[in-house]
Amino acid sequence: MKADKWAPIGVFDSGVGGLTVVREIMRNLPNERIVYFGDTARVPYGSKSRDTVIRYSRQIVRFLQTQQVKAIVIACNTASALALETIEQEIDLPILGVVKPGAQMAVETTRNKRVGVIATESTIQSGLYQKLITQADSEITVYGKPCPLFVPLVEEGWTKDPITEEVARRYLAEILDKKIDTLIMGCTHYPLLRSLLRGVVGEEVTLVNPAYETSQALRRMLLELNLANPGGVDTGQQKYRFFASDGVERFNSFAHSVLPEQISDTRQIQIEEF
Amino acid sequence: MKADKWAPIGVFDSGVGGLTVVREIMRNLPNERIVYFGDTARVPYGSKSRDTVIRYSRQIVRFLQTQQVKAIVIACNTASALALETIEQEIDLPILGVVKPGAQMAVETTRNKRVGVIATESTIQSGLYQKLITQADSEITVYGKPCPLFVPLVEEGWTKDPITEEVARRYLAEILDKKIDTLIMGCTHYPLLRSLLRGVVGEEVTLVNPAYETSQALRRMLLELNLANPGGVDTGQQKYRFFASDGVERFNSFAHSVLPEQISDTRQIQIEEF
Repeated sequence: MKADKWAPIGVFDSGVGGLTVVREIMRNLPNERIVYFGDTARVPYGSKSRDTVIRYSRQIVRFLQTQQVKAIVIACNTASALALETIEQEIDLPILGVVKPGAQMAVETTRNKRVGVIATESTIQSGLYQKLITQADSEITVYGKPCPLFVPLVEEGWTKDPITEEVARRYLAEILDKKIDTLIMGCTHYPLLRSLLRGVVGEEVTLVNPAYETSQALRRMLLELNLANPGGVDTGQQKYRFFASDGVERFNSFAHSVLPEQISDTRQIQIEEF
Repeated sequence: MKADKWAPIGVFDSGVGGLTVVREIMRNLPNERIVYFGDTARVPYGSKSRDTVIRYSRQIVRFLQTQQVKAIVIACNTASALALETIEQEIDLPILGVVKPGAQMAVETTRNKRVGVIATESTIQSGLYQKLITQADSEITVYGKPCPLFVPLVEEGWTKDPITEEVARRYLAEILDKKIDTLIMGCTHYPLLRSLLRGVVGEEVTLVNPAYETSQALRRMLLELNLANPGGVDTGQQKYRFFASDGVERFNSFAHSVLPEQISDTRQIQIEEF
């Protein structure tokens, strides 16, 4: 397929969480255009099965292909863990998930070879973070912990709340006992809890944000493939376009709390049709 | 359509919460057979839009019709609030939601004419509990409060937990200040928090469980239509059959905590095909 440097990056997530990845791409690759899709009609993915997440991800990739994207970022840990391997064999486009960049950074960061991962139920059960880290360094031990209440707590807006802190203390007690020195925030909502988590884990534990690492991996991939947008050409299209499968007002209002600029023209599409 | 007393009742919900309604039907209408569908691939509905919930509910009703049900119970407050009115005009079968029976009981129960409703975001926003109650008695004031964290807290198993109690105190503070004497547990998961909620609201507030009221309304409806199952005929089919759109193991394990008997043969179906 013809590589078009000026084409947008397709980014998708089960809902709004992937906007934390969009934020990092906006900051770190300011020339790139983005088409974002949030599957708000079927959110969340974190408690759903591999087959279902693959089926949903395939539909979304087909939709993004209709938008002439030059590359795809799966900005959802669960879909990255469950669907990326299958999907990358099915399409021609370069595609990237958030799990691998997060795992790589954890490998580079840890000194005592003890890494914690917090994520959804399905991401932890997939064992992908664990597998990628121990493949890179078999001396590292990985401790995973599903934290299913974090997403609803963030969506409730309780990101700096004593209740959320109490929940975090309970979830993290076990893996902190293992003396980890690195903790991967393995769900796109969790970076929004960064300062609260910092308080719970203390200063000695490095927090890895896969959203940031993914923007760096995307930069490297685009340069390698000679696909980085040099900027400077007006394509006549909006730089950032947003689509969701449900509730665009709710989507816009959450986006407002994550992104540097307000968005108001999110379009709703029926994703099952793709 | 030919009325068949021995046909099953079709019951559906966005996921597993509707099993609290199944439990009440099993207890109170022990002759009735049940076909249950839980939309675990698209759960939850409580934060989704009316159009999406109607679209999903239509597919489920079409599936239940393939199971030759004699009547349908929407065992989900959100779908009852957003989709029942539309769906009942589209089908021939008798159909019942959980909102109306819950609202009626609240009207009969309140003495001081101050009723609280706790439910999902979408159920509260629909205003249906409020509307039905004030239509029945315009002197009643209804205070609604969305409690989005209750469902994930129940699914985490923290039904008797100080954190959940703290969340409940915060959610309920405002409506308890209004001196309500009746509180509708307007989401199918909430009856699983009954004893915790009892502690928070005190002995003076009557808790209304729409799941129980719905089983009573179903009994009346079946008698009126001459559709009550007299029992005694072996149809050669399982009395209770369960279907879900994803994660049947997870479904079975939650079902085990709600229903009097263990279920193990839940079948997975692809609901978008209906």
